[in-house]
Amino acid sequence: MYMEIIKYPAKADWKNILKRPLFDYSEMEAKVAPILADVKANGDIAVKKYIKEFDKIDLQDLKVTAAEIAEAELAISPILKKAIATAKFNIEKFHKAQVVTGKPIDTTPGVTCWQKSIAIEKVGLYVPGGTAPLFSTVLMLGIPAKIAGCDEIVLCSPPGKDGKLHPAILYTANLIGIKSIYKIGGIQAIGAMAYGTESVPQVYKLFGPGNQFVTAAKQMVSRQGVAIDMPAGPSEVAVIADNTSQPDFIASDLLAQAEHGKDSQVILFTIDEGIIQPVMDELQKQLDNLPRKEIAAVALSSSKCILANNIDELMAMSNEYAPEHLIISVDNFNSYSEKIVNAGSVFLGHLSPESAGDYASG
Amino acid sequence: MYMEIIKYPAKADWKNILKRPLFDYSEMEAKVAPILADVKANGDIAVKKYIKEFDKIDLQDLKVTAAEIAEAELAISPILKKAIATAKFNIEKFHKAQVVTGKPIDTTPGVTCWQKSIAIEKVGLYVPGGTAPLFSTVLMLGIPAKIAGCDEIVLCSPPGKDGKLHPAILYTANLIGIKSIYKIGGIQAIGAMAYGTESVPQVYKLFGPGNQFVTAAKQMVSRQGVAIDMPAGPSEVAVIADNTSQPDFIASDLLAQAEHGKDSQVILFTIDEGIIQPVMDELQKQLDNLPRKEIAAVALSSSKCILANNIDELMAMSNEYAPEHLIISVDNFNSYSEKIVNAGSVFLGHLSPESAGDYASG
Repeated sequence: MYMEIIKYPAKADWKNILKRPLFDYSEMEAKVAPILADVKANGDIAVKKYIKEFDKIDLQDLKVTAAEIAEAELAISPILKKAIATAKFNIEKFHKAQVVTGKPIDTTPGVTCWQKSIAIEKVGLYVPGGTAPLFSTVLMLGIPAKIAGCDEIVLCSPPGKDGKLHPAILYTANLIGIKSIYKIGGIQAIGAMAYGTESVPQVYKLFGPGNQFVTAAKQMVSRQGVAIDMPAGPSEVAVIADNTSQPDFIASDLLAQAEHGKDSQVILFTIDEGIIQPVMDELQKQLDNLPRKEIAAVALSSSKCILANNIDELMAMSNEYAPEHLIISVDNFNSYSEKIVNAGSVFLGHLSPESAGDYASG
Repeated sequence: MYMEIIKYPAKADWKNILKRPLFDYSEMEAKVAPILADVKANGDIAVKKYIKEFDKIDLQDLKVTAAEIAEAELAISPILKKAIATAKFNIEKFHKAQVVTGKPIDTTPGVTCWQKSIAIEKVGLYVPGGTAPLFSTVLMLGIPAKIAGCDEIVLCSPPGKDGKLHPAILYTANLIGIKSIYKIGGIQAIGAMAYGTESVPQVYKLFGPGNQFVTAAKQMVSRQGVAIDMPAGPSEVAVIADNTSQPDFIASDLLAQAEHGKDSQVILFTIDEGIIQPVMDELQKQLDNLPRKEIAAVALSSSKCILANNIDELMAMSNEYAPEHLIISVDNFNSYSEKIVNAGSVFLGHLSPESAGDYASG
């Protein structure tokens, strides 16, 4: 058994139960500051030095070439290309509907006021490397930047041991029209985009997730005149299930987020005690076949399954937790969703194991 | 003569000329951190200790009472009440038009996506004290929070030497329905709202301007799980004038922002050399009659008047500067405004000296 099961917790204990690990980035700043200062002062030379130190490779050219993009295109299977095209279509359709055209308002006769959104000219997108090629991040960050009309979009991602970026990242970036792609990760990538170097253009705002070093670096440069989207914490999901839910789907929803990282946190909320054991059994079964089993198991060990007395109490706990992602995978999802006060993204309805993976990767 | 006049600067010099003083908040963190930690650990006792230390007053009760609000109402002149009511009406009308109702989009058959904005339950508003009662800040922060539907709105502002808040701040806060008003300023106010104390409720997001200590404190608590609006810098305005502008109005526009603080910065851009001297003469004339003359004069001494060759070059400089406020006070304002890429708020048209003050205070 992996997840801790907590039945009918008293309200006084909620805060403690729902506490997420809060990372103190100030402790990292002593490590991050000298690297940022070095990149600011010495540009590409410093960037290459840290790539050698951290990524253990000697890079001559930081910028991805047209030949590397052509090579990536050949390396991507038709099935993956089709999946990326579908995701691109959906993400574009959704974000195009978000474009705000300010309504002119006459506040006083002769005084007309309106909001106008103008794209940030130069933006920097950070796409983490490491254990999985996050081409979904390329889509999620790049498509809104393109729709907004950003002039210059710079993308940095850490090179693999072969000194290259994963072909899925290159293929996706090229597909949505990102031309400035750099093989730089970590603190040195944030520094390069924040200050500019001989090869990397300076940008006005940085976007994207990253590990604790990247987050600390983003927070530091945000105090030096560069904007950032937000400090990104570990991935998390809360899933609400009841006796109308399919245990295998619920287990997939939980694992799809748990496999993101050892520091991920997943929470299962339910008012039906009977759904708990079947989900736990499915978790065990699916976990055994998961390529990222080890990571997901660590994340599950600090995760929780919480049994509540009723929907009101359950939603009060969910709102107190304020999950990044909330999946309400029950028949009467509206009874829950109308009580949402705090949540990042919300999914209503039943996911299939396949769609759960797609969803969570976004 | 106060402002530095720079004629036809070479493009290579723009960056240097348009550089704004960048404050290094990290140096302040050593001073701010122990005060925040003390407020977190000791609540009201610590808050009162710092009020005694910094504001030189002994406060028994931190929360503003109904009696104090009634007293404030009597202290406000009918003329000021009418001005506040007008501002409230205009600000409400503008922000009500900003409410976003997400359009449902079918990305894939059976999958409907939409955006839904839900008010943050508990927000904290910081209203600076010091040299001017910023009741405009109460309106600008409080009205959007009310329209959004925030459940709990907490307002902190530093007490005066009489241990009270300025009646204009109390009257305005009460008018828009803010019930939780506290006589706390500075670092201790940010700490009280971020962590909660015996008297002050803990909030989820902090809004509002403040001095360098307040800004540093906001940045520090933002790394501890509380959201903030943005790091606020000193006030600034860029004014674009030409030979269709009225020198006295332009001078008022510049002074209205310069009087905010000694660290404020104002920039006058023009392509008509002939407007410069008349504006400088008006500046001198109006400054002599300004109650906040000393503050405005210091701000003007680090401010600039820049003469450009043409509208394209002028707007390129303005975009590079990216002013918080941009006033385009010329007849053909559209020739300029269509080239705006970076600016916070933009005012198009001719302001009167009276309206300039109203505008800039928002």
